Amino acid sequence: MSLQQLLDPQSIAVIGASKDKTKVGYAAMRNATEFDGPVYPVNPRASGHLFGRDFVGSVNEIEGSVDLALVCVPPPVVPDVLRECGEKEIGGAVIFAGGFSEATDEGEELESEIKEIADENGISLLGPNTSGFISPSTGVRASFVPHVERIPAGDTSIVAQSGGINHALAFESYSDGRGLSKAIGLGNRANTGFQEVIRYLDGDENTNSIVVHIEGTDDARGLVETCREIDTPVVAYKVGKEDVGDFARSHTGSLTGDYDLYQAAFSQYGVPTVRSCLELLDVGYALARSPEPKGTNVGVVTAQAGPGIAITDRLKSAGANLPRLSEETQDEIEKVLPGITFSDNPVDTGRPMPEFGDVVEAVARDENIDIVVVYELYEEGLDYPVGVLDGLAEDTGKPILFVTDGPSDIMEDAINDLERVVPTFRTPERGADAVCGLVRYARMSNRGKEVVDNE
Amino acid sequence: MSLQQLLDPQSIAVIGASKDKTKVGYAAMRNATEFDGPVYPVNPRASGHLFGRDFVGSVNEIEGSVDLALVCVPPPVVPDVLRECGEKEIGGAVIFAGGFSEATDEGEELESEIKEIADENGISLLGPNTSGFISPSTGVRASFVPHVERIPAGDTSIVAQSGGINHALAFESYSDGRGLSKAIGLGNRANTGFQEVIRYLDGDENTNSIVVHIEGTDDARGLVETCREIDTPVVAYKVGKEDVGDFARSHTGSLTGDYDLYQAAFSQYGVPTVRSCLELLDVGYALARSPEPKGTNVGVVTAQAGPGIAITDRLKSAGANLPRLSEETQDEIEKVLPGITFSDNPVDTGRPMPEFGDVVEAVARDENIDIVVVYELYEEGLDYPVGVLDGLAEDTGKPILFVTDGPSDIMEDAINDLERVVPTFRTPERGADAVCGLVRYARMSNRGKEVVDNE
Repeated sequence: MSLQQLLDPQSIAVIGASKDKTKVGYAAMRNATEFDGPVYPVNPRASGHLFGRDFVGSVNEIEGSVDLALVCVPPPVVPDVLRECGEKEIGGAVIFAGGFSEATDEGEELESEIKEIADENGISLLGPNTSGFISPSTGVRASFVPHVERIPAGDTSIVAQSGGINHALAFESYSDGRGLSKAIGLGNRANTGFQEVIRYLDGDENTNSIVVHIEGTDDARGLVETCREIDTPVVAYKVGKEDVGDFARSHTGSLTGDYDLYQAAFSQYGVPTVRSCLELLDVGYALARSPEPKGTNVGVVTAQAGPGIAITDRLKSAGANLPRLSEETQDEIEKVLPGITFSDNPVDTGRPMPEFGDVVEAVARDENIDIVVVYELYEEGLDYPVGVLDGLAEDTGKPILFVTDGPSDIMEDAINDLERVVPTFRTPERGADAVCGLVRYARMSNRGKEVVDNE
Repeated sequence: MSLQQLLDPQSIAVIGASKDKTKVGYAAMRNATEFDGPVYPVNPRASGHLFGRDFVGSVNEIEGSVDLALVCVPPPVVPDVLRECGEKEIGGAVIFAGGFSEATDEGEELESEIKEIADENGISLLGPNTSGFISPSTGVRASFVPHVERIPAGDTSIVAQSGGINHALAFESYSDGRGLSKAIGLGNRANTGFQEVIRYLDGDENTNSIVVHIEGTDDARGLVETCREIDTPVVAYKVGKEDVGDFARSHTGSLTGDYDLYQAAFSQYGVPTVRSCLELLDVGYALARSPEPKGTNVGVVTAQAGPGIAITDRLKSAGANLPRLSEETQDEIEKVLPGITFSDNPVDTGRPMPEFGDVVEAVARDENIDIVVVYELYEEGLDYPVGVLDGLAEDTGKPILFVTDGPSDIMEDAINDLERVVPTFRTPERGADAVCGLVRYARMSNRGKEVVDNE
């Protein structure tokens, strides 16, 4: 089964579409109709139209083909709906309803039944028990959550076991001014799980990194192997360090546990693991927007020493290596800024200044350095060294990450200009954590050239 | 020496005020004149006026009294300026310039000299080598950093060893929609250090919590003892887990080191310690806006299980205790929401719903619970349970923290309404970390009643 019809549909039916604004069938239809292709509201008990589309009584009344069904009906009705989808050769279905394997024994039986029907009919199911997915890169919003249409297209895709986490991550990404290719909440994973979705995303031309939220799965080995085998960088957030088993089981019908095993396996396979939603997004963003790091040697350039020390401390805690700069680089910096505050690695200029960008470039071109992280508080009038940074990562083949703080509303335009040329992060520690993700990724033995490592 | 004239001045002289927009003397004057009291530009080589105030040649030409001098002159001129300040009975001075003990041996001598002059004349010095302080609660901005006047008044004060960290924290707080009472960058601490400032803030009626950033100090014991002795809650961010000694020494002239000793001492004295700027601000904010936690038992209420599991996992990792709810509370929740998804602790309603606030209230009134944390994705139309939450923390005497995610621009008004009645946090883990700070605070043996602890 391909996930093409599920995740990249050309046409959508909303089954159980409703004029009642309190219903999922209304919210799903509202979001679906943001799509640029045909969207059909399906409801045998409704008439007239919804969001400009005429109701039909069944998917079989639709003239054209349909790729994706958004199933907004109660659990007992789902089997019949899926059989109709099968007749119509609909290849993907999102089942929003809960009350399946995560809830009761009867729910578990019902889930087995719908899985069987879906398998027989070649339907890839997302869910049940999910708030769906969004695909800003193609304009599809198969979710009932309001305002997801605001999230712009970007380079990273989210795969979350929890629909709530999926949407929390998507909106946090939006709040940080970043886009997404797709954001997918798996829910109960009746016949479409981590591996299928991750493999599909590996073939998505709009996805440059995949961030994965995991509560638990019966096939941990398969998941980890998948992350190793694909080309697209993956970052993993495994929840369940502590015993939250009962609560998790009641949620997506799966066990947490085996936290340490996951961590060890991911680490062995060069999949950076993280401990929070923000870190997941930051590392995913750094990977999506950077050349592949060729090693673990980090160069730090700061315009304010305090944040620079906080970054350096955190990098070293995570095992990053801060080598000395080459003689040539030190000479170059001394030429640009004679008597600079601190010209080893880290390099600290003490304050923002017009030459700041030249110092960043000198460090980026140092042969001892694989990854560059820059910190500069926003200072109006001086602005960021956008000109020097433009193309520098591509030219040097090295990730360059820019970390900054300042008055968010005042700096908005400047940040947007900066973000266009270099991935940008807020607060010293979020920036440092993004670098640490790149370092862990680079450490994977079968990636890049020989890795220098101080651990 | 009192810090009253330094940190709560009634009148300000800007020495070295300048019409040249590239100079500190211009930027400091621009910020200072946001103050509602008299502000005097002082410069023997300038004439005319600046920001509507007439230049004077020396502080001694000012008719009224002056409390605070903002010293915007190069290092060699500072001694003479301070002597003049002494004659004028100016009790506080901010020395912005660097190039003192953090830089060279000559700088160290010069710093000794200015300290001697300040001590003789009863002048409290902030700096040298600092970007100054701001006091949104009183309208004083003794800083050269643009846009600090936008930061509104609030309940938390910042004390940072680094001026850069001070301003990064202040702007991050602003970006999160929070105010500050004061934000102070200590710099080289010639005669005004952590202890003096922290004690002063303990007497500041606008300061309900103090967040402290530390690189290193010669008198760690004195600092830690001060945090214990005062009534206002303190949160500490000690940088320097790893060896960043050389870099730090070049910055504020002090050693980092003794990280583990600091951590142990703070922990013993009930001062929560944190590992990042965001965590520092979040814990400080939670403490400032909450009743003092009476114990370490946390009740978790979520409208989406995925984020709830992430919160629970993180709370347990940090040693928080999640006790069972009382029979009465469980009955009450079952009455409000029959057949709820998960009604132990955590309580998960599965989705936002009108009864969500009633569930939060039932948990907050449970005798087994000391601290409540709530997670709900923003859902337009349902909005947040502001009515139920209003006054609930005061009424129960328990901290109640609300964690949420959503489309930041759309939810802005709703967040502002919510924030007025309950401290609010973004992302599951930032919320969990704030709760963990309260738990660590409550664990201090000499605070509150007997503490139940599962460690």
